[in-house]
Amino acid sequence: MSKKTKVNAAILIIGNEILSGRTQDTNTSTLAVWLNSIGVVVQEVRVVPDIEETIINSINLLRKLYDYVFTSGGIGPTHDDITSQAVAKAFNIKYEIHKEGYKILESYYKPGEFNEGRQKMIWMPENAKLILNPTSGAPGFSVENVYCLPGVPSILKSMLGGLKNDIVGGKPVLSLTISLRTVESEIANSLTKVQENNKDVEIGSYPFFQAGKLGVSIVIRSDDQNKINVCNSQILDFVKQKEIEVVNRD
Amino acid sequence: MSKKTKVNAAILIIGNEILSGRTQDTNTSTLAVWLNSIGVVVQEVRVVPDIEETIINSINLLRKLYDYVFTSGGIGPTHDDITSQAVAKAFNIKYEIHKEGYKILESYYKPGEFNEGRQKMIWMPENAKLILNPTSGAPGFSVENVYCLPGVPSILKSMLGGLKNDIVGGKPVLSLTISLRTVESEIANSLTKVQENNKDVEIGSYPFFQAGKLGVSIVIRSDDQNKINVCNSQILDFVKQKEIEVVNRD
Repeated sequence: MSKKTKVNAAILIIGNEILSGRTQDTNTSTLAVWLNSIGVVVQEVRVVPDIEETIINSINLLRKLYDYVFTSGGIGPTHDDITSQAVAKAFNIKYEIHKEGYKILESYYKPGEFNEGRQKMIWMPENAKLILNPTSGAPGFSVENVYCLPGVPSILKSMLGGLKNDIVGGKPVLSLTISLRTVESEIANSLTKVQENNKDVEIGSYPFFQAGKLGVSIVIRSDDQNKINVCNSQILDFVKQKEIEVVNRD
Repeated sequence: MSKKTKVNAAILIIGNEILSGRTQDTNTSTLAVWLNSIGVVVQEVRVVPDIEETIINSINLLRKLYDYVFTSGGIGPTHDDITSQAVAKAFNIKYEIHKEGYKILESYYKPGEFNEGRQKMIWMPENAKLILNPTSGAPGFSVENVYCLPGVPSILKSMLGGLKNDIVGGKPVLSLTISLRTVESEIANSLTKVQENNKDVEIGSYPFFQAGKLGVSIVIRSDDQNKINVCNSQILDFVKQKEIEVVNRD
């Protein structure tokens, strides 16, 4: 199968708790690392509140702009979980009990425990494709290119494995990080030249503080290992010339 | 001074390292908690790559939609730091050496150390207002309602104190968190009723796992303490009736 060179995605984090700062979002980085590993580049992230109209508009915009959209949050049993209904409205399809999902939860819970609150979790857009949840039963779902996952990080993480065959990535993005004992301003000009000589490689520069010492990590990203190698050697050239210590390279 | 009831903001996180998942963003929660404390509600967060056009478009959209925009990232000395120039282009004003900023860095660095790389950090939109940086010298800046801060979390944090007088918030948002030893589905219906009886209060429900035990935190948010108290007592009523243990309330 020939692969598209570039496949992209957006992440839509849904939830007042992220916008209030109460909860630190970690799902973006979990999703991004996983997507990168299967050749999907995250191009944009949005965090929006639990407001139906905002969710609908965001989904309808992002699903047209990007190959894939991943949402996180708002598919639980309480009143503030409105993602599933919003997705149904975004696609203008029915919102109803998902038969397969119903069976899954019916057998997941003990008799009598599959109450109304829990049943809310299998109200989904008509014909949604389930994303199985090995941690806590209640599945996520996808409609076309929109994949809806829960907000609880450990549960979201456990569901990614089951998604792998659904997502067709491009060439995986490879990266090399060179960590130097220097400060950014010492290498800025030399690094600019390397970037200018290698326009289609993404070169980022990130200061760090570790064990009381300053350093800079240079991250080289491309889907072509040869191009990364060329940048690597050009960077090591000026690093040697400037007598800068290489702390780490991986 | 009479205050607007609601003052809102957007946060724009700029940087490939967040989108690749390499770096876990923590600035959103730092900014959101701080903004909440001075009566500003964060309504939207976007994370965008180091692409000038995307940054310009995002800034121009967000600054019209919200009272304040806070950007994080892209104001350092290297080639991938393009926020300052993008802000100048967004406002269609000159991008030039900031005289006051120049003086600050000239005296911050030892003679001879204020090199070209470091000078890049005080290229700013014309007449930008500086945001002082007590940690590492190089200031951030604001233009109209757009406030540009660095991406390094400890530096960003240290600069917020100096901003306090610039940001005019509305009534501070107060919150109460009630943590219960239960699962969401047990309380979903009762909580929905409390929300329906108190439509202008924001009530969120968040499952947690702590020391191997499941629980749910209910977060009540409003700028009116009395309204929070009303919700609190309605929630404690059904909690008592259902014989659910209250783990914490603060």
